[in-house]
Amino acid sequence: MSEQWLEQITWSADGLVPAIAQEAGTGRVLMMAWMNRQALQETVAGGKAVYWSRWRQRLWHKGEESGHEQLVKEVRLDCDGDVVLLIVEQAGGIACHTGRHSCFYRRLQQDTWVETDPVLKAPGAIYKR
Amino acid sequence: MSEQWLEQITWSADGLVPAIAQEAGTGRVLMMAWMNRQALQETVAGGKAVYWSRWRQRLWHKGEESGHEQLVKEVRLDCDGDVVLLIVEQAGGIACHTGRHSCFYRRLQQDTWVETDPVLKAPGAIYKR
Repeated sequence: MSEQWLEQITWSADGLVPAIAQEAGTGRVLMMAWMNRQALQETVAGGKAVYWSRWRQRLWHKGEESGHEQLVKEVRLDCDGDVVLLIVEQAGGIACHTGRHSCFYRRLQQDTWVETDPVLKAPGAIYKR
Repeated sequence: MSEQWLEQITWSADGLVPAIAQEAGTGRVLMMAWMNRQALQETVAGGKAVYWSRWRQRLWHKGEESGHEQLVKEVRLDCDGDVVLLIVEQAGGIACHTGRHSCFYRRLQQDTWVETDPVLKAPGAIYKR
């Protein structure tokens, strides 16, 4: 399989591209993380989201600890080729490590970030280790 | 007005944060761009999206040339505080400089990026200069 599609991506100086995960059906934006070439390649090959963890400095198979995998239905690329959009099915309905549906659970109201989304499962129950 | 909410953002080494614009109503992800502190401040103060153009190295009032402004209905922050999500009304229904609704107009099909979204207005008609 040709990998020309990977060459069409404008990778950052450190070889990464931001990847937005949006939930199929609800349209909710769940999270944004980063991918390197291998992460995107594995995501497309395997059909499950694989990111590059900048702080762990390794591939991060989303859900590897939590079970909250993302089944990838669509992969989209923006006009500049430097942002990827994934349309996903979110296992467990929880994308965030805080146990919430979406990582964007805070909303600016006046001059305060207010938590608007409930914790669906306590992190202690998600991460057993 | 206190600016403590700005301090809660985890700015990148070069003082930026990625900002995703999602259309109110349709839920379509329109674009992702970058903001510095001033851009976000002006966005919240004025209610219209202001980004930091990395290649022009200046504030970019979205729509300043095209008229395709973004009226900001909601500002959200993710769990790590390093990505912002805007819920916007998109003037003219066109977010992309190519004249398309969304910048994410290409979809990966097999090993090819396929354009799935039509050009609604020719760039030559958008940018008069």
